[in-house]
Amino acid sequence: MFMNAIKAKAYAPSHITGFFEICESKSAERTGSRGCGFTLQAGTVTEVMVKDGGDTSIQLNGVLARAPTTEFVVRGLAAKHSVEVRSKIDVPIGCGFGASGAGALSTALALNEALSLNLTYERAAKVAHIAEVENKTGLGDVIAQSTGGMIIRKEPGAPGVGIVERIPVGDVKIDYVVFGEIVTRDVLEDADVRREINKAGKDALKKLLCKPTFNEFIRLSRKFAIETGLLSSKAADVIEAVESAGGMASMAMLGDVVFAIDGYEALKEFGDVKTSKICHQGAQLL
Amino acid sequence: MFMNAIKAKAYAPSHITGFFEICESKSAERTGSRGCGFTLQAGTVTEVMVKDGGDTSIQLNGVLARAPTTEFVVRGLAAKHSVEVRSKIDVPIGCGFGASGAGALSTALALNEALSLNLTYERAAKVAHIAEVENKTGLGDVIAQSTGGMIIRKEPGAPGVGIVERIPVGDVKIDYVVFGEIVTRDVLEDADVRREINKAGKDALKKLLCKPTFNEFIRLSRKFAIETGLLSSKAADVIEAVESAGGMASMAMLGDVVFAIDGYEALKEFGDVKTSKICHQGAQLL
Repeated sequence: MFMNAIKAKAYAPSHITGFFEICESKSAERTGSRGCGFTLQAGTVTEVMVKDGGDTSIQLNGVLARAPTTEFVVRGLAAKHSVEVRSKIDVPIGCGFGASGAGALSTALALNEALSLNLTYERAAKVAHIAEVENKTGLGDVIAQSTGGMIIRKEPGAPGVGIVERIPVGDVKIDYVVFGEIVTRDVLEDADVRREINKAGKDALKKLLCKPTFNEFIRLSRKFAIETGLLSSKAADVIEAVESAGGMASMAMLGDVVFAIDGYEALKEFGDVKTSKICHQGAQLL
Repeated sequence: MFMNAIKAKAYAPSHITGFFEICESKSAERTGSRGCGFTLQAGTVTEVMVKDGGDTSIQLNGVLARAPTTEFVVRGLAAKHSVEVRSKIDVPIGCGFGASGAGALSTALALNEALSLNLTYERAAKVAHIAEVENKTGLGDVIAQSTGGMIIRKEPGAPGVGIVERIPVGDVKIDYVVFGEIVTRDVLEDADVRREINKAGKDALKKLLCKPTFNEFIRLSRKFAIETGLLSSKAADVIEAVESAGGMASMAMLGDVVFAIDGYEALKEFGDVKTSKICHQGAQLL
């Protein structure tokens, strides 16, 4: 039935932000966040099939789903086509791993290839960034996932628009435990929370740029989580336990998730510990 | 004897440019090239040892050597220290693989780590770019080697200064045969050659931006090599043979080297064929 389907496949890493500042603009491509985070190898692989006919559909881990951010990308790049999108996501959704951004970015790169749209990487990625902004699912994940590594978002915006600098890191292993979701949209829409985020985020970025190291990033992230009131009581306990054991930890923004280095033993008292390495490359075609 | 040596290690990919335009500025960080090329996994691994005393020395593949570009980086970042630099280079030197840039960039990242200089990735990489410009060993390699993938250099300059866009590519295997060196400095200093390069390079970039694909890149690179007179007669024969056999090929700028996709069988009639995959990440600490 799908004998004539044109297929393409792309991968995008996950992205965990430690702190951020919300930066709005009239233009979606200039809207985004300042802040700092890192990409993880555990990520999303998306296969797109452009078919002769039939409905457009999106499957997440084998299940048909509404995925508005990815749908936005499909409408933007393949409005006239019937497309089957299948994403395999190696991290929990809605927990601060930038899964919506990874889904949208891998879909954009795969559609660009399947339909021979001849967009540069940055132009395809920009569509994914705009999809995140319009759907309020993320602000800084796509530019980080297009870069890879440990990324300081100095100026907000889409890939090719925002400005990033990286903190040099080697093969760092990150352990993490997931306690639950936080709905990004709810947080972004609360004016009081936004004010606290922007104050604490701006301060953290200023300090990090004076000493752009991995340890300073974790320290400032923890401070940000406390100052904004976003730190869950569970996460606070876990972070303390990791630090007592000589590791460093903070909370993913925005998810009830603690990530740590040198924290495996302490983390495993609290739940199922997953491990992934920092990913040094951006999303790519497979 | 070196018990107290502080060590750090970094990797940088190679970079082959297909076409370019020389862009000069009074500022070394704004000097560079526009053009397009790709990074290869075959690259350079550099270990630095900061010692308590003794002379600064540089070894390339186990042999003491004068490596002015890397020396410049050591003077810039570690002037007050005694440093032993050991680079293992997986590609031929002086043949258009950006080995001087890879050596300088990996040295800069390793020194930043060993001496806890707390520079961002871009700031450390900028020192390597300036070293290339001042020593006339390269113009666009360091920004490409800091990015990874297939990189269009839209605006010249150091990492964090120049502007790049990428052509989306998957896991592409590149075959190549090395016939000999071309001295970059000699080419860059000949006014007539420069004029031809800039005319052909500007034209190629304009066309590539209209259709940023891998095949178009190779086609425009070949055209550039012919128009500038840089194409060696040997390389011309080899490229023709690859294309007759259904592959695509062009010449590395600047080296008497032919690179090809789907060209292994044709290439092996002409010499020792090496193969490396496109590297999707920039240089990193190890």
